[in-house]
Amino acid sequence: MAKSEAVKVVGAWSSPFAMRPLIALKIKSVEYECLEEEIGCKSKFLLKSNPIHKKIPVLIHGDKLVCESLIIVEYIDEVWSSAPSILPSDPYDRAIAKFWAAFVDDKFYPSMKESNTGVGEEAKKAGLEKMVDGLALLEDAYVKCSKGKPFFGGNQLGYLDIALGCFLGWLRVTEKSLQTKLLDEAKTPGLVNWAESFCAHPAVKDVMPQTDQLIEVSKTVAKLRAASAPPK
Amino acid sequence: MAKSEAVKVVGAWSSPFAMRPLIALKIKSVEYECLEEEIGCKSKFLLKSNPIHKKIPVLIHGDKLVCESLIIVEYIDEVWSSAPSILPSDPYDRAIAKFWAAFVDDKFYPSMKESNTGVGEEAKKAGLEKMVDGLALLEDAYVKCSKGKPFFGGNQLGYLDIALGCFLGWLRVTEKSLQTKLLDEAKTPGLVNWAESFCAHPAVKDVMPQTDQLIEVSKTVAKLRAASAPPK
Repeated sequence: MAKSEAVKVVGAWSSPFAMRPLIALKIKSVEYECLEEEIGCKSKFLLKSNPIHKKIPVLIHGDKLVCESLIIVEYIDEVWSSAPSILPSDPYDRAIAKFWAAFVDDKFYPSMKESNTGVGEEAKKAGLEKMVDGLALLEDAYVKCSKGKPFFGGNQLGYLDIALGCFLGWLRVTEKSLQTKLLDEAKTPGLVNWAESFCAHPAVKDVMPQTDQLIEVSKTVAKLRAASAPPK
Repeated sequence: MAKSEAVKVVGAWSSPFAMRPLIALKIKSVEYECLEEEIGCKSKFLLKSNPIHKKIPVLIHGDKLVCESLIIVEYIDEVWSSAPSILPSDPYDRAIAKFWAAFVDDKFYPSMKESNTGVGEEAKKAGLEKMVDGLALLEDAYVKCSKGKPFFGGNQLGYLDIALGCFLGWLRVTEKSLQTKLLDEAKTPGLVNWAESFCAHPAVKDVMPQTDQLIEVSKTVAKLRAASAPPK
């Protein structure tokens, strides 16, 4: 495995999924180039690099293409195996981290999306409720996994931290747009501290977008969506 | 890691997802006990073992519980690491196998479900079309991954074989119920041969249900669904 081959990431600075490989590469101290996709416009290069899903991120490592953000993170962890580990070394801890990362993608993220872009107030409200329930489960998982240490994986930023942490920017946008507090000291004290540690980590702070910047992106996305919606 | 602790699988013989850990355990020559769930009735034990998703399969290994079928397969591969490997050893091959296994779960399986239980003929037809498209992509993936050998992973039954192969029984049911051929020599010659090798493999043949048995299950499930549907 030629670790030294050029590494590029097809992504977008505002995408939580595209942020995952960047954090993983920073943890491993791997130099990379970002190939930035424009919002609402998939490049020919992206369509060619990920013809099945046509989605960012795509990792380009020499002549190899790897798609799907969590699979990319695992690939990075396995190729640059001598640098700090991203996945836990114990098989059971690995299984637990993968279980919750899948929960983030399959349950938590859809609920966040629904709470922001659901059609009608009822759908948005249902999304918000699921999101609050999801955060309560993730709070429990954090308490169990971290055992009093700053990250899900203990003292080191790891797989599940990356999986969930990449949504923190959009969680802040959701809080602002719905004028509600989703992470707070009363309901999710563990996650409040974890979020602070996550955002301050050297591998994260340069790639975590500002909430105001993301709000601008959400306005652009809403305009694009309205323009492409069928006339009523 | 105490490999020798008792291994149990909460599952159901007709479930493609529950079949995955069984095949993985057979590859590793691990003795296990099946805790069979009744169709349409989740046991208290299952609800307690997998409180988040309330779904089979659950692997019980000593006092450890592992949920989500592909995560269980990876766990088995990592704990009983001295027996034949299930995941490829090369990080890129692993990423490719995981990519297509995720495709099976996120795209192929939903299309199969839609083609069988979609509401109205149009939905069923759309599901069938997606299923045919998915099989064409999987045929390509098989040709590239197998390089002329019997399995996706080469000469040994591996991760992607397990991920896709567990749907072969229900694929036969779909073929019968829609009176169409989904795997055939003209469109999917590679997968036709692969399916034969898969079903004949010692780790598979005792756990792969007969099509007629699955048709009976599908009738039971349809009856349960009709009984629980709201009155029109």
